[in-house]
Parts: sequence; C-alpha cells; structure tokens
Amino acid sequence: MTDLVIRNTTIVTCDGQNTVLTDGGVAVENGRITRIAPSSELESAASNAREVVDGTGHILMPGLVNAHCHAGDSLFRGLVEDLPLEPWLQVVWKAQGATLNRETTRLGSMLGLSELLLSGVTTTMDMFWYPDETVHAARTLGARISTGGIFFDPPGVTGDDLKGRIAAAERFFEEFGDAEDVFPAVLPHGAYTVSPDNLKTAKQIADRHGALFCTHAAETRAEQADISSRYGRTVIRHLDHLGLLDERTVLAHCVHLDDEEIDILARSGASAVHNPMSNLKLASGFARVPEMLTAGIPLALGTDGAISGNDLDMWMALRLAATMHKGYTGRADAVSTAQALAMATTAGAKSLDAEERIGSLEPGKFADMILIDIKRPHAVPMFDPVTHLVYSTAKSDVRHVFVGGRQVVRNGALTQHDIAETIAQVEQLQPKIAASIA
Amino acid sequence: MTDLVIRNTTIVTCDGQNTVLTDGGVAVENGRITRIAPSSELESAASNAREVVDGTGHILMPGLVNAHCHAGDSLFRGLVEDLPLEPWLQVVWKAQGATLNRETTRLGSMLGLSELLLSGVTTTMDMFWYPDETVHAARTLGARISTGGIFFDPPGVTGDDLKGRIAAAERFFEEFGDAEDVFPAVLPHGAYTVSPDNLKTAKQIADRHGALFCTHAAETRAEQADISSRYGRTVIRHLDHLGLLDERTVLAHCVHLDDEEIDILARSGASAVHNPMSNLKLASGFARVPEMLTAGIPLALGTDGAISGNDLDMWMALRLAATMHKGYTGRADAVSTAQALAMATTAGAKSLDAEERIGSLEPGKFADMILIDIKRPHAVPMFDPVTHLVYSTAKSDVRHVFVGGRQVVRNGALTQHDIAETIAQVEQLQPKIAASIA
Repeated sequence: MTDLVIRNTTIVTCDGQNTVLTDGGVAVENGRITRIAPSSELESAASNAREVVDGTGHILMPGLVNAHCHAGDSLFRGLVEDLPLEPWLQVVWKAQGATLNRETTRLGSMLGLSELLLSGVTTTMDMFWYPDETVHAARTLGARISTGGIFFDPPGVTGDDLKGRIAAAERFFEEFGDAEDVFPAVLPHGAYTVSPDNLKTAKQIADRHGALFCTHAAETRAEQADISSRYGRTVIRHLDHLGLLDERTVLAHCVHLDDEEIDILARSGASAVHNPMSNLKLASGFARVPEMLTAGIPLALGTDGAISGNDLDMWMALRLAATMHKGYTGRADAVSTAQALAMATTAGAKSLDAEERIGSLEPGKFADMILIDIKRPHAVPMFDPVTHLVYSTAKSDVRHVFVGGRQVVRNGALTQHDIAETIAQVEQLQPKIAASIA
Repeated sequence: MTDLVIRNTTIVTCDGQNTVLTDGGVAVENGRITRIAPSSELESAASNAREVVDGTGHILMPGLVNAHCHAGDSLFRGLVEDLPLEPWLQVVWKAQGATLNRETTRLGSMLGLSELLLSGVTTTMDMFWYPDETVHAARTLGARISTGGIFFDPPGVTGDDLKGRIAAAERFFEEFGDAEDVFPAVLPHGAYTVSPDNLKTAKQIADRHGALFCTHAAETRAEQADISSRYGRTVIRHLDHLGLLDERTVLAHCVHLDDEEIDILARSGASAVHNPMSNLKLASGFARVPEMLTAGIPLALGTDGAISGNDLDMWMALRLAATMHKGYTGRADAVSTAQALAMATTAGAKSLDAEERIGSLEPGKFADMILIDIKRPHAVPMFDPVTHLVYSTAKSDVRHVFVGGRQVVRNGALTQHDIAETIAQVEQLQPKIAASIA
C-alpha cells in the first residue's frame, strides 16, 4: 500500500541527470520513494494511497543537507559581534561554559534544528557538546542528524579528559550506531585544539565503526600560521600526514588552501564544507570554491552556527555559494546554478557517506522532500526551476517538509513540536547568557 | 486628533543618536510622526486615537529606502543568467524591446513594488521606461517612489529621440513635481549610453526643477575601460569634468573607484548606491564600501533590478553590505551594523534629498514605519536590536507596513491590491517573454 503521493508539481530531482519534471509526482512507501513519474501515471497509486498531497504551484525537491552546523549555538545568536574568529571564540567559549548543560544544550538544539527544519533542511551535520541531546532534539522534531562524540583537548563544557571523550564517543555508537535517522560521526574540533595523537585516536574510533570523521580545517589565516609553526606543515598537509583524510572525512571551511592542498584533498576523497556567511562575517575569507569544484573535491554547503551567521539559512548559503565567487573571481560563470544546488543536496549527502539514502529524489531513497511555494511576488515569473531555487527562493517559501515520508512541517509550521514553547524557554534563559560575558 | 498610535514595541529610530527605545510608541497625525515616547507616556494619545496598534513582540523601525531599482525588470527575473554585465545587457534589452509597453511596464512595476512593499521598503528610487506608470503602480500600492524621465541615446523601448526624452522628462515634472509621494528625478542611463551633451542636458533639467540626477556609474571594469578610451577620463572624472556631481546626484554602483575618485565623490557631495547582490552575481566586483564610508560619501543601498538580483530583497542587501566587505578586506569590523543600517535608511533618505522627510522615526517626518516580528525561531534570542536587524532579520519577518500613517501591509499581505491578480497576469505574459529571446 502506498503511504503518500505528492503530485501535480514541478519536481527538481537533483539526480545524476538533473532531471526536472514539469508536472510530476512521487509515491512513498515505508518512508522511501517508490516511484517518480508524470502526475498522469500516478493516478492509480494516488487512488490507493493513505495520503495524497496536491503540489500545484510548488516545486518538490529533496530536503536540503546542512553539512556544517552547531545548532545549540543558536542560544548565543548575536551575543558577540564583529571580531575575527580567534578572539571571538574566546568570548563564545566563555558564554558556552557558563550556560551549557544537558538541558540548555537540548534547548539550543531544539531552537537551531527547528529553524533548519522549517526552512527545508532535513539532514544536518552538527558538532556540539552532549551530541545525544542533539539527537533527541532532532528526533522530537522529526529531522535527520549526523553527529557524535567531540574531541577537544581543553576541558571545555563537559570537563572530560581524553578517557572521557573516548568513552562518550563510544557510547554514542552504542546508542545510535544502527539508527536510520542518525549518521554517526566522531568530531574532533580542529587541529589547533586537538593534538595529533588525539586526532588519530578519534579517527581510529570512527574507522572502527565505519563512521564519519569531521573537523574544522583551514578556516583562517591565523589557524594556518598557528599549525604551520607548531607542526611545520599547513593544516591539510598536517591532517594528511597524520593519515586522517579519506572518503569518510569531512572538513569544515577549507578557506585557505594552496594548489597542492587542493590536490591532496582531491586525491584523498575527503569532503569539504563551504560556509559562506560565516566566512564573510568573521572575515575568514573566500574559499576557493571554483577551484575545489574543478578539482573534483566533494564540496558540501553549511550554515555554521548562528553565533557566526547569525542564523541557519541554507537558502542564503546557497545564494552566496552561487554568487560571491562570481564577484570575487570576476567570472560570471564561476559557479553554476547546478553546481550550487548540488552542494546543498547531493554533495551534502555524499559528504555524509549517505548518497544512497538522501540528497536526491530517486526510487529507493528516503522520502526526505520539501515543497516550495513558487507563486510569490518575489518569485514569479519562473523560467527555469533550478535557477529559481538558487537565486530567487527564500526560506519562507518552504511550506511543507517530509522526512521519511512523514510530514514534519505543514504550511510553514512544525507538526511535531510547539515552537512557542522553545522560544519562551530561550527568552527565559537570555538574561543569564547576557550576564555570562558581562 | 491622533490618527494612529503604535506602542509596546522596541523602536529602532535610526535618528542621529541611533536612539533605541525598549518599550516605546509612536503617535501619528496627518501622515506625520508627532511624538515618539515610552509607551507609558502615550496612554492619553492612545485613548484618543482613531487606531491603536499593539507592537508587542516586534521592532518598529523606519521603512527601508531602496536607492537603486528597476522594478519593471521583475518581469524578466531569471531569464538571462551567468553572463557579465555587457553581454547580459544585450539580451536583457532584446527581451525588454519585445515585451515592454505602457501596460506591461505597469505590470512589471506592480510586481516589483509589491515585493518591495511586502518586505518593508516604503521608498524606492526606480529607473525604468514609462516612469509615470511606475508612479501609478506605487500609488496603487501606497508606496513612495523616486523616478522620472530617462535619457538613453539609442531608441530603446520607447523609440524617443533627444527631443522626446526632454519632453518626457519635463512632462514628469508637470505631472508629479509637487506630489508628496514622489521624489522627482532625471535619470540618464549611464555614461556609456548617453553622450556628454545629453548628460548635461539631463542635469540642466534636473537642476531647473531642484530635482535629483541619477545614473549608473563605474559598475564594471569594462565600463571604466570604455569611458576612459572614449573620453580620456575614468567614469567619475568624466562626470565631474562635465559638472554633473553635486548633492542631488545619485550614482548607482560605484564599484571601481581609485583613491582620487573617492576624493572627488566625497568633495562633490554626490551619493553612491551600493548594490551588493547585483555586483556579486554579475561578477562586477566589490565596491570599496569601507573606504567610501570613511571618506564621508553618503552611501545608500539598493537591490538593483530582479533581472540581476534575482529578487528585490533589501534585507539580503543589508546583510551583504555588513558582511561581504569583512570577508573581502579580512577585517571583522570593516562595516559596522550601525553603518549598514544607515545605508538602508538615513543614507537612502539623504541620497533622495529627503532626509527631512523619511529615513528615520522622528517627529515631523512622514510616518513610514514597519513592524518586524522578532519572535521567530531564526531570530531569538535578541541581544541587540540593531545587530538583530542587520544579521538575523529576513524579509518574511516584516508583518506590517505603514506609509504616511496608512497601513499598506497587514499581517504580511498588501491592503491596497490583490497580488494574486498581478501574479496571474505575469504568468500569462511569461511565454511571450521567453519567446522574445528564443
């Protein structure tokens, strides 16, 4: 029996051929897509389906993949402004230390992941304290999540030593290693906060579980200088030298790379994650996106945390990924709309080693799908759906979101959670956060 | 008698002292602000007012000023992509020539100005064919507009010769010269499309009416090279040499300026308009925004047309103005939030020679005001209202818009016009537009 049919809609599949159906439909069974076809061919499926959604006036596309985020940091949105990364991090860490426990972390994750789900992000790779709380938040909302134990040599929020970090990482796999809605990972913070030995330990745990290994890398010039002076190698060379780069490695930022580092990355199969708004606002710089794409590096897209952003707007990230490198390189075709859209969908899926499950609308994949209103004054006329998604779509155009065929956003509102409750709790916590850095 | 009181709201006045009231209100009479005070002091005004609006959970701020736009070009949104300005213009002009008449121009202006008003832009400087149709569209919606006769040496859409252009410019002043809702201007397209003599003629007409003179300037390197080779001077020097730069001159773009050109502009009193999204997408480059601000050039903000944008999102422009120059210069304080917000408000007003009438919430000014919902998951917590407006606000957060005290947007919908009608007409025209460049 068919659980769900969405039909009468423009479908941007994001499949390998970038197939677009102008009047198509999708059938879903047991959380997975069973069929994509012209609407006219789905009549019998629709007549037997538990639920039929009319997608008239909308684009149906895969849920977006946000490949780099710190959802819990939404608690600190706008707290520290207009500083470069390093001094900024010192204040952020102070506020985190004074504010975060399991309860507040879950609250922050609820806030951040709600924003993401409402804007059509169905899968997020998240690096934060108490990652099991992030999973619980994602499950409450009905979103997919990639996260896991963090490594960080200083005590940080949890105060764990190395043994504690290892135990937490292992516990995460015990609890979530087999879940369909979790893509487990080990996430050391970065080469400037985690020693070479501890980076290797983190990678060994990830490898033992066939899991992802994700870290910040080459975000700023200062970081490059720091790592070079400590280890005699730039960040990517340092990580490569330690044997940390392979197809299950995800490197957030990769702003400052020389040609050889781009080659190293491309050969390794590791994914990079572009975070345009964070890179602009923190004055980190312009990642070499066109060169990375040309080199064949799987290049995903992320929002980073709302403390750098100051929101988690993947549509803004998508627009910037498609435009800012044109302005920077002087080439109006520096990044194509198809390349940009792939960054937010299929490349995100690939970075999570999940390209068989998410990132495009194809039979057999999870029915993670979003419906976008295309009849708004900022969005008509529409001459090409892909161009439209990249250059004219705003987060508020996302009206309906399905994860594994379940509708988790209806008419722009969460179906599984009362967001007003979360907002009220955040506002109650706000004075304490402000006081933490006063 | 008080016509309107809005109270119980956070007010970002954008006045000279950047005054913020955490629980304030505004009283309006005959279309103008009569009082701004703490809510508690407005009780008697409210009890006698025709209408009282509760602004709880919102920020009240001045309506935004979009200082460079081609609203009618919204008809061609997404039609021509990923080309640099010059070859792109050739296709745009072809589509315009085949599509535009009085009726379609008004339709395009309705589309563009509706988008703008819904997102809180209460005044727009617009350069387009049939400017009286733009005024009619603005009036239908209840928005303020700055526009006037264009000068363009080729026949263009209307086929007028110089005499026709002059007559049209004069006619505009006859019809709208005394209107409160129109800031009249003369708008030659640019130094590369209008001869030195005709630029001077346009300026003379503007001066005779004490009106604005607006043109594109120094948008691309190709334009700089073209003007230098034709006239032996760069664009700004060329305009200066022709005596066209003064306090009522508005220069759109100003991307490619050398230090001396920045000095020339600063001394002249002319305004520049930064159009970040257009400059990125058309690969025009990075305007020297921090340097122009330091030099004291009145620097306004614009969206440009939706054919370069591909929308008219002033919040996107605001965010970019505040962030992209940080990424570009490597300085996390390159543009402050206060500077960015001023670009979208007071500097916009100044560029239109209307700083006594619009751009801030102050007694005596037009009651052009917008209410922004600040209780959304992408926008809490809020530690500072100005930071919040620049870095976290999206166009969809604008809920209510008042122009001259009249509510023209209520709960995110136009009060004076049925936008569905405009959208249907645009979609009916769409196949003809697509065919025009096929």
